[in-house]
Formats: sequence, C-alpha cells, structure tokens
Amino acid sequence: MNYFSSDFKLGILGGGQLGKMLLYETRKYDIYTCVMDPSEEAPCRIACNEFYTGDLMDYDKVYEFGKKVDVLTFEIENVNVDALEKLEREGIKVYPSPATLRTIQNKAKQKLFYVDHNIPTAPFTRFAYTNEIHTALNNNSIDFPFVWKSAQFGYDGKGVKVIRTYSDLDDLPNVECITEELVPFKNELAVIVSRNTKGEVVTYPVVEMEFHPTANQVEYVICPARIDPVVTEKAQLVALKVSESFQHTGLLAVEMFQTKNDDILVNEVAPRPHNSGHFSIEASYTNQFEQHLRSILGLPLGHTDSKVGGIMVNLTGEEGHTGKVVYQHIEGIMKMEGVTPHIYGKKETRPFRKMGHVTIVNRDIDRAREIAEEVKNTIKVVAAKNI
Amino acid sequence: MNYFSSDFKLGILGGGQLGKMLLYETRKYDIYTCVMDPSEEAPCRIACNEFYTGDLMDYDKVYEFGKKVDVLTFEIENVNVDALEKLEREGIKVYPSPATLRTIQNKAKQKLFYVDHNIPTAPFTRFAYTNEIHTALNNNSIDFPFVWKSAQFGYDGKGVKVIRTYSDLDDLPNVECITEELVPFKNELAVIVSRNTKGEVVTYPVVEMEFHPTANQVEYVICPARIDPVVTEKAQLVALKVSESFQHTGLLAVEMFQTKNDDILVNEVAPRPHNSGHFSIEASYTNQFEQHLRSILGLPLGHTDSKVGGIMVNLTGEEGHTGKVVYQHIEGIMKMEGVTPHIYGKKETRPFRKMGHVTIVNRDIDRAREIAEEVKNTIKVVAAKNI
Repeated sequence: MNYFSSDFKLGILGGGQLGKMLLYETRKYDIYTCVMDPSEEAPCRIACNEFYTGDLMDYDKVYEFGKKVDVLTFEIENVNVDALEKLEREGIKVYPSPATLRTIQNKAKQKLFYVDHNIPTAPFTRFAYTNEIHTALNNNSIDFPFVWKSAQFGYDGKGVKVIRTYSDLDDLPNVECITEELVPFKNELAVIVSRNTKGEVVTYPVVEMEFHPTANQVEYVICPARIDPVVTEKAQLVALKVSESFQHTGLLAVEMFQTKNDDILVNEVAPRPHNSGHFSIEASYTNQFEQHLRSILGLPLGHTDSKVGGIMVNLTGEEGHTGKVVYQHIEGIMKMEGVTPHIYGKKETRPFRKMGHVTIVNRDIDRAREIAEEVKNTIKVVAAKNI
Repeated sequence: MNYFSSDFKLGILGGGQLGKMLLYETRKYDIYTCVMDPSEEAPCRIACNEFYTGDLMDYDKVYEFGKKVDVLTFEIENVNVDALEKLEREGIKVYPSPATLRTIQNKAKQKLFYVDHNIPTAPFTRFAYTNEIHTALNNNSIDFPFVWKSAQFGYDGKGVKVIRTYSDLDDLPNVECITEELVPFKNELAVIVSRNTKGEVVTYPVVEMEFHPTANQVEYVICPARIDPVVTEKAQLVALKVSESFQHTGLLAVEMFQTKNDDILVNEVAPRPHNSGHFSIEASYTNQFEQHLRSILGLPLGHTDSKVGGIMVNLTGEEGHTGKVVYQHIEGIMKMEGVTPHIYGKKETRPFRKMGHVTIVNRDIDRAREIAEEVKNTIKVVAAKNI
C-alpha cells in the first residue's frame, strides 16, 4: 500500500496530547489522518485531515469511525475492544491488536499473562470485588501493606492505592481488582519496545524515573538510566521477553521495578506512545511517535540510539490553582541550554493536571540533570486569576 | 503578551512547505495560527487554526488578513509590501519588517544595500531593462560571461541565468535586472542568523552546498561545512555584519561564495526559514523554525549548536515524470541509519519540482555523507503512471 498518498487513511482513536504528537509525524510523511475524540476541543482537532467527535467506549461510534480508515490505532487504552474486534474481522488493520489490548486493559488479566509467560512480576491476588479483600486479610492470605489496583480503567495513575490499614480500604470502589505485594525497589525503570507488522523489533535505551525525595511522585525521566550495565541489560531482556510474549504491533512501553536485589519485575505495560518516551523527540535518532507509525505501517524501524542525553520533566498544574492557564516563567526556561517546552493546549489548569512536558538535552547527562532541576524550580503552571 | 494562550494570534502569509514546518513548532507551543495562501490545497491548511485563501500580492487580501492577527510573518518573499507597511503603521507587528523585505525583494536594491554597508559582494551593474545590456556590452562596460538576474521575483532559482554569448540574452524577459561578474568560487556557503525583537542575535554553523560534479546543481547541504576554520570564522563574521546592517527580526539566511582566494562574497539573503537550514530539524538543539518563532515573538533565542552532523538532500521530481507522485524506494532509505524523509504533500510531481527533502544525521559527518549518497541513489520521485 502507498501510505504516502491520499488513497490511504490512518485512523487514531483519541485526540489528546499523545495523538497530537503522533500527528506531527504523520505530517512529516504527509499521511492522511482521521481522529475521533469525545471532546470538540481535542488538541488533535486542527492537525488531522478529518475530525469526529464520539465516545471511545461506544461500540457504534468506534465501529463507524474504524470503517472509514485503512489502519486504525489509538493513543489511549480505554476504547471499545468489541468494536475493534469486529473491525479486525472485517479486514481493517487494527494496531495494536484488539487481543493485545484486551489483555492489557484488565490488570488482573495482564498479571496472569505475565505469570503464564514466565515474566517476572510482583506477587498478586485477584479479587472479583474489593470487599472480598477483608476475607483474605482475615484468613492471612494477604498482609498489610499492599497495593490495591482496580482491574479496569486504571489509566493515568487513577485506580491505584497503597493500603497500609483497614481504613485505607474504606473509600475504594467495590470493583474487580488485584492486590500486589509492595515491593521495595531501588529504581523504577522503563523500556520502550517497538515491533512492526513484519515482526521486526527494536528497543530504546533503559530510562530511569527519579522520584521526589519526599513526595511519592516521579520528577524526572532520565535517558539513559544511571544504573549498572548489568541491570540495564537485564531490563532490556525482560522488556524484549514481554514484547515477544504479546506479539504486539506498534510501541509497547514496559514499566519495571529494579528491586533491592537488582531483580527486574514488570509493573505494567502501555501499548502506545508513552510519557516515558517523550525524551525521544529531542534526544533520539527516531522519536517514539515516528517509530509507532513506522511499526503500524510495516515500514522499516528507525534507529533508537540517542544523539544526546535526555531528561523529561512533566508540567503539572500547581496546587491551589484552578482556571485559565498561564505558564509562568516559561521564558526563563527557554533561556536555558537545550530546553524545549511542550505545551499540550489545555485551556484550564487544575492541581496536578498534566499540562505539558519539558525536555532537557545535553551531551552530559549530569549537566542535563542540573538544568532539569533549574527548569523544575523555575516554570510554574498557574491560574491567570491567582497571579 | 501571553503567546501561550488563545488570546494571541500569529498570522503566516504563505501556506507551503516552509509554513507547514513552522506550524509544527507553533503546535509545540500551542500558539494560535492563521494562514493565508492562494491555494485551497496548501499544505498548511490542516495544521493551522484558521485558513484563508487569497493572493499574497493582493493589497486588500493581505491587509484584511493582517488585521486579524497580532504578529504577522511570511514564508515567502513575494507578498504585498504596501499592505504590510500599512499594517505596521496600524500597530500590527510585522516581522521581518516591510522595510527589510522591500530591500530584499528587489535584487538591485539588495546589491546596492551591500555596497552601502561595506558588505563584500560580486561586482554588478544595474539595468532598468534587459535590452540595455547590449549597449553595455557594445561599449565594453561589461563582458561575457556574466550572470543575469531579474531584479524582482527571482524566488526559487527562477530569474537567474548565466550568459556566455549574445544569443543567451535572446529569451530573457525585458525587465529591471542586474548583471553580476561570474565569480569562480571554491564553495557556496550559507549561514542562518536569527535576531529577536530585543536585538539578540545567534548564528547557526556554516553550511556548505556541495554541487553535482557535472550538472550545475546543489546536491547536498552539509553542516558543518568541511572548510578551513579561518574561512568558517570569516563567513560567520560576514553573516553577522549582514544581519546587523538589516536589523531584521526573525531568521536571515545569508548565502555566500568562498572565492578561489578564500574571500567571502555575499550572494543573496532570505528573511525566513530556508532550505539551507532544514538540517536543523534533526541536527540542531533548536531548529530554524522554532528559532524564527522565538525571534518574532521576542522570546529568548535557542542554542544553535548541532547535536550531530547533518546533511540535507532535496527530493526533486525525476526528469520525464509528470503526474500523481510516488516516492519510489522510500522504504529503502528509511532502513538507513539516521535518515528522515520529509514529504511536502504535493500531489503532482513534475521534473525538478521540490517534493520534499531528506535529512541524514550522524556523529561522523563523513559517514553521513556516504549515507547521503546512498539516499540519493535509492529514492526516486516519479509519476505513478510511468512505473
């Protein structure tokens, strides 16, 4: 098929910031794009050829949209898989496949998948409903502390909670869930794997999530991870094994823990461009969005090496600020060496809302880390009315 | 002014491939954009917030369009400068300024400007009409061979011809023109200078245009130029002097000759993103399009160093091919290391039509040059019906 002609249509479910960054790359290749998103004001609206509004969980909407395109992909996991399956049966190329997505969408299924494929992951227990956890605690089949995870729709940090006492269970929804042993870890790592329709596979370098020393929040995504080469290699191999097990098409972001004993445990995966790969826009020979396109279109995969070291800082709304957004001191960070802000185009800020990200690149990763800290201390995402 | 909000509107005259690449960057900063182009099918149409069709030489169209925006820029020099002047008087920020553009639009004025500002340039003679050249030849005030250049609308290689005999003059239009001494040169070089509204200035590394050994055509734009550091420094200083003389805002691409004696002569300038700066998308810390935006919005200028060596190859239509375009063997070049094709989105190819470009990046510029040659020997821009 000639992708570089107007005869071909690529469909993207979801029109948020990931879709927007994917669309930059379709423009570079002049690929014709159709996007569906529930919001009339989705960031993708102005960068695609055809835009549709529709609920991504609505069977009919997803099916109708999918019938318009040749290849269908998504920038968010919460889409109607039944519709994707029907589309696939009717000859639309859906990447990643509905089968991959169905396993990943449900965290209990995802964990069982790791066990079935001998992929190391933290020990866990499945529950049909949250209120069954009390019984398990009573008969000592699980112990405090543990992590509670909703099986479905856990996207973006929601649906995860550390449980230390009975009272922590009180506010949880009574849904299908898992509990997971709270594994003490040295580092949280991630590897992005890309696999094209021909089964060719490449991996990006291992990245490291650096946490805030007191708040339990990722502050920096650092590429390459500043870890022992032996651990780097182990993380790469585990990521490749996960990829091989899924036989996915497109990107697969594999999030992992490096335990105190330097074991690697898979935490979870995302079958799409991922926050942990944003550094690649400025730092890599081929960025993750271009790589995803190459993969799902069956094109040769691009080189995943870095030109320079890269660090990503998320731009999130300040606490106490809700309303029309202002990026305070953005000019201050633009003066710094190798700093690129990415503004997602959301009009309103709210506390902790992801409003953009900033990439810092430098030949010297330690210098990049210093500049990243300056960035973090300078720019603030605030509400216009509060300043 | 808060550029990163929907209260601000940036206007771009011209919606071609340069505008399209500029729009990628406005998306990164979520800047609201309006574009006007004569063609309904302009590549920019789907990446801006508001699109208008209109002749860029039409006073009323340009004026009406300009009144809608806060800052107005252009991706092509052939725009109505009278309208820009009126807009500027009425408080619209027009960058580069109409005064800069007026000087550059007319090649005779541009050459006189260099002379007035002690900027080295090849000796030339002005003519109100081409047919006056005969008189000058007859009374020996000029000699064969020389270069004839139309004073106006010489964009994109049109309006330039090497004249070796009287018969070469026959087909030329009878217009305002200049004749220029044919200077034997070792290299054609270029430097992109960017100057923001605050008068801050940065320069990109010197690039070299490598010509085809027999056809008189630029094959590769190479950054950094493989020349003596003394010449590099001289070229940088000349470019800075040109920039200082124009007091432009935004990018200024300065094209120069390195003579047999290693003198630098200014050939011509373009006050906008330029073909000679396309390598910067993949190779530089800040690409030329982002730099232009930073400049015209009065933001801090970005670093112009390269992460890696970069070479650009233009993708032009093959001889003998006219019709619906196919990028033959594009997958072949996508397999090569550090290769990124940029497809401009023109539906029809014609012999020598600029259909895109390819960037090759590598830490080793000599290796990049080898890969660039493989690229050139692999991809072909052909018509669908001929294959």
